[in-house]
Amino acid sequence: MLKRQLGPCVTYFPQPTSIITSVNSEGTANLMTASWVGIVSKTPPTMAISLNKGRQTYDNISKQKEFVVNMVPASLAVEADFCGIRSGKNHDKLEQAGLSLQPAECVKVPLLNESPLNVECRLVQEVELGDYRLLMGEILQIHAAESAFDEAGKMDVRCFDPLVYLGGVREYWDLGNMRAAAYADGQRLVVDK
Amino acid sequence: MLKRQLGPCVTYFPQPTSIITSVNSEGTANLMTASWVGIVSKTPPTMAISLNKGRQTYDNISKQKEFVVNMVPASLAVEADFCGIRSGKNHDKLEQAGLSLQPAECVKVPLLNESPLNVECRLVQEVELGDYRLLMGEILQIHAAESAFDEAGKMDVRCFDPLVYLGGVREYWDLGNMRAAAYADGQRLVVDK
Repeated sequence: MLKRQLGPCVTYFPQPTSIITSVNSEGTANLMTASWVGIVSKTPPTMAISLNKGRQTYDNISKQKEFVVNMVPASLAVEADFCGIRSGKNHDKLEQAGLSLQPAECVKVPLLNESPLNVECRLVQEVELGDYRLLMGEILQIHAAESAFDEAGKMDVRCFDPLVYLGGVREYWDLGNMRAAAYADGQRLVVDK
Repeated sequence: MLKRQLGPCVTYFPQPTSIITSVNSEGTANLMTASWVGIVSKTPPTMAISLNKGRQTYDNISKQKEFVVNMVPASLAVEADFCGIRSGKNHDKLEQAGLSLQPAECVKVPLLNESPLNVECRLVQEVELGDYRLLMGEILQIHAAESAFDEAGKMDVRCFDPLVYLGGVREYWDLGNMRAAAYADGQRLVVDK
């Protein structure tokens, strides 16, 4: 395939759109939109987020050792973009974006109420990467929208309606159609010798 | 919002679907599908991947200190699932999946020819997380499908057709519609005081 070289940059996608919640020493919550978020281990369940060391969220997590990763639904694309643009140092993003909080179970940091998937984390490790800090959190509890479950306990992706971020292209997209079942459809190509 | 508690697990999405290419000491290439992949720093551009320490890909990267992250297009959903199921230790995944390689520019590891977005990385740091290893690679070069660019140099997301993985739900989906422009549409909510 004919390709064009972009040089060393940070163009890679698709990525999740996530709002990180954190609190300062007075318990005041801050929201920050992040796309550099992912699962990094199953033993124990661990999530990593990367953020600029100048962010209020970094200051909050360094001191309180806790954070929550909230999946953003496509219906909140504009609100999520707003929470990525403005610093929490001078603005009450919660009020301006019309968002609300609900209590977590294991941490003092609140969940984003409007998010259908929230991950409670306790900071366990930090890696310095230039101006960025990769923060690893042990996953303590995950909350998923009750309305997404059928009677057998299977989750319907459409109810979560996840917002996908295209880094480098700077666009937010929603999901289209299911293309394959994981750990299942690939079996078709297996030819044991 | 009413929510159900899942306990500490690794259910989080959306995630990118990526095929990691690596080579062993004889230069033989291996493919491994991974969803725990992401950008982690801009200074310098850095990508992180997480994989089980028992994988052939981990052995290859530990020794050769290089890897390539290849974005999977939706048209290769079944092939990507196959490359996640089978270990490279006993199978020639390239041949069985009908995929091909092309030379990289800065590393000995080849690019996946059929992938419209390839990221060449040099291993710079490793973090132990239980049975998993988080490998950080400095981004040396990125290749993007020439057909995705218009005359002004803007990339069309539809030409990449990225495959989105839903971890926990175990489904692969394609993209639907654009919902917002990043660093732009959120400005509408800004109210300076």
